[in-house]
Amino acid sequence: MNEVNSDLGVGLLGMGVVGTAVAATLIGRAEEFAKHTGKNLKLHKVVVRDLDRQREIELPEDTLSNDVDAVLENSDIEIVVEVMGGLDPAGQYIRRALAAGKHVVTANKELIAKEGPDLFEIARKNGSSLHFEASVAGAIPAIHPQLRDLRANKIKSITGIINGTTNYILTNMVQKGMAFDNVLSEAQSLGYAESDPTSDVEGYDAAYKIAILASLAFDQRVSPDDVITEGISKIEPKDLEYAAELGYAVKLLAIAEQKEDGCLVRVHPTLLPEQTPLAKIDGVQNAIQILGDLSGPLTFQGAGAGGSATASAVISDVLEVARALAIGNAPLWDSGIQGEGDILTLESLETRYYLRLLVSDRTGVLARVADVFGEKNVSIAAVYQKEIHAQEDVAELVIMTHKASEASLNEAIEMLSQIPDVHAVNNRIRVED
Amino acid sequence: MNEVNSDLGVGLLGMGVVGTAVAATLIGRAEEFAKHTGKNLKLHKVVVRDLDRQREIELPEDTLSNDVDAVLENSDIEIVVEVMGGLDPAGQYIRRALAAGKHVVTANKELIAKEGPDLFEIARKNGSSLHFEASVAGAIPAIHPQLRDLRANKIKSITGIINGTTNYILTNMVQKGMAFDNVLSEAQSLGYAESDPTSDVEGYDAAYKIAILASLAFDQRVSPDDVITEGISKIEPKDLEYAAELGYAVKLLAIAEQKEDGCLVRVHPTLLPEQTPLAKIDGVQNAIQILGDLSGPLTFQGAGAGGSATASAVISDVLEVARALAIGNAPLWDSGIQGEGDILTLESLETRYYLRLLVSDRTGVLARVADVFGEKNVSIAAVYQKEIHAQEDVAELVIMTHKASEASLNEAIEMLSQIPDVHAVNNRIRVED
Repeated sequence: MNEVNSDLGVGLLGMGVVGTAVAATLIGRAEEFAKHTGKNLKLHKVVVRDLDRQREIELPEDTLSNDVDAVLENSDIEIVVEVMGGLDPAGQYIRRALAAGKHVVTANKELIAKEGPDLFEIARKNGSSLHFEASVAGAIPAIHPQLRDLRANKIKSITGIINGTTNYILTNMVQKGMAFDNVLSEAQSLGYAESDPTSDVEGYDAAYKIAILASLAFDQRVSPDDVITEGISKIEPKDLEYAAELGYAVKLLAIAEQKEDGCLVRVHPTLLPEQTPLAKIDGVQNAIQILGDLSGPLTFQGAGAGGSATASAVISDVLEVARALAIGNAPLWDSGIQGEGDILTLESLETRYYLRLLVSDRTGVLARVADVFGEKNVSIAAVYQKEIHAQEDVAELVIMTHKASEASLNEAIEMLSQIPDVHAVNNRIRVED
Repeated sequence: MNEVNSDLGVGLLGMGVVGTAVAATLIGRAEEFAKHTGKNLKLHKVVVRDLDRQREIELPEDTLSNDVDAVLENSDIEIVVEVMGGLDPAGQYIRRALAAGKHVVTANKELIAKEGPDLFEIARKNGSSLHFEASVAGAIPAIHPQLRDLRANKIKSITGIINGTTNYILTNMVQKGMAFDNVLSEAQSLGYAESDPTSDVEGYDAAYKIAILASLAFDQRVSPDDVITEGISKIEPKDLEYAAELGYAVKLLAIAEQKEDGCLVRVHPTLLPEQTPLAKIDGVQNAIQILGDLSGPLTFQGAGAGGSATASAVISDVLEVARALAIGNAPLWDSGIQGEGDILTLESLETRYYLRLLVSDRTGVLARVADVFGEKNVSIAAVYQKEIHAQEDVAELVIMTHKASEASLNEAIEMLSQIPDVHAVNNRIRVED
């Protein structure tokens, strides 16, 4: 349909799972891509650390290099694809590429979330561009809907399950009744969790992603430091069991909301009524709900990670740049990631809470606990007393509150901890309805 | 963030529910849109048939006109938004606008499905462009994901609930046990169905939409005539009840599949296992599942119609055109709607079937029926005999088949109709697993 007018050089930085899928597809589908874009996409160089490592695919001779200058100093390469991950040296390489007028496609959520504004500024100054659809939720369109398809809307909120590892762990803790540590080990051996799982399980990975989504949605800079972040490592099988008895699933939710006086962005385990769509997202699936004032609620669901799914987003970005260049367009849009606006702290949150307390199994304790909540204006919706057979003199109280402010709840927990008969507040999980 | 460099005139054709929402938003959000796009979007003219009709919003003086030339011959207007619907005169107006070098944004699925290739050709020749995200599934991104976000994929199939009226009717038939005609009347009085409901209930509306989606997915022209289309008017409450007993929901599905020897595109009532995501899409909601070879299955869900939801897509297209013009880009992409490829007929379909037969309640009839299926190589998975209390000498047989070819099934039905004890094949509904 389009005349193929010229070659367009592509350089790839990194050849892990995603890079391998990108390289294989660019090579295998070269003819179709040329027909579609009007450019012959040529994968000139792939930069890797270790030239001797066994690779899953065979590349044309002289394509592999361990010298990043083979891409960055190569005037035949107009598009640089970065799939190494991490801040350094990926950030340094992307800066050099953008400064040299090259267009960059990246899947690097940490870098975009932390240093996006600086990178976009470099691109703007140098007539280059930076594309990052792959940085959030794999193949699920998450960036472009906000930049383009839903641009007419005021976005009120974004709620998502955007970390597959934690969702896999929570799903398996429920289904197998296993403890967090055991499921994590299993996930690691299956390749669903990294050998250092901190970024996933402590919620940092989800925080990077929701920071990016919130920046776009609210047209203001939201950095990962602005995201209230709590991981899933404290969740016990008991919490999942009690939640299920009450009709809830527990999910690591990323939530960004535009409120009257600013935006509130958070990542934390959340009790969700089990009939809600997000409660049913199991295993490594991702789902994102966007609430626009014109669109109403929209849900996007699919594989949020994996080589092919991420390559789908990476290469689609490459194709869009190629198509733009072929017809003489600048492959630019606004990042929407550097505006200013107020960001709220957790103290402003009003929500419902699930609490699990270990108390002495003695008359009057429940009344004392209830008093504390009353004093702090936290209204209790229900209390369930759970027997603990191993220790006969203690009992577990599961408390569901009505909507209360986080500040009041924290004060109540502080007061509870001073009651001798309250041995521990074993968990506090927020509830979304 | 962007300097506002100049005015950009917009003309609106039609001011029904969608047009009203478009006009209200363009006027009410002018400042933000200018900041985002770098163009002052000015709604110069709104063309309506009846100038005297009461309008829900007040427009600036001299904006309303009943003369289409006020838009088409107006050199200040660079973007024309068409939300009249129907082939004529909308098609004529869009042709004139494109020929005059104006960019056109439309929500007109019938026109794009039937005459898209011709319109895109006119745009190409005249340096204009045609944008149609709003033509399918309201605010849900349905067009752009295929043109851009998933472009790297080979799309294997698209399956959707893309007509809100029929989904509303089926949902209410189930929930209230009411007959089709009664629910339709109710839907009409509530504004969920048109006074002439033919296009919705006979599946034509869904056929236009899946023709557009299939054209994009498979990069070949699929016209509405290529879509095998069957509506929901023959579905009886009994079918829904029996399906539910067997664990299925009945939905009007639009399905486009790329097979080895061509693509098969169809719209028909379908039994879906009730635990599948699409089976749970109730009321006027829409959902689209796209299966890409890299992305895996993706699901998009939301409001598929309505003034605001459609305006969300229309205005987002307008903003993208404005942004492109502001930075000197051509707001063009490939429509992907004019390639060539083979299109399969229903005879090539292999699927499972639900059949409901009215038979004499007499020994040997079931054996005779089973013989016919055996002879035609249609394997029966289960037979359920349902008593009919009103007529004691007849019984109803509900038959679920294994996978069979549509051709064999049709032959079996033809043979059954010649058995005196088979009084009627009251329904035949395809099953997707």
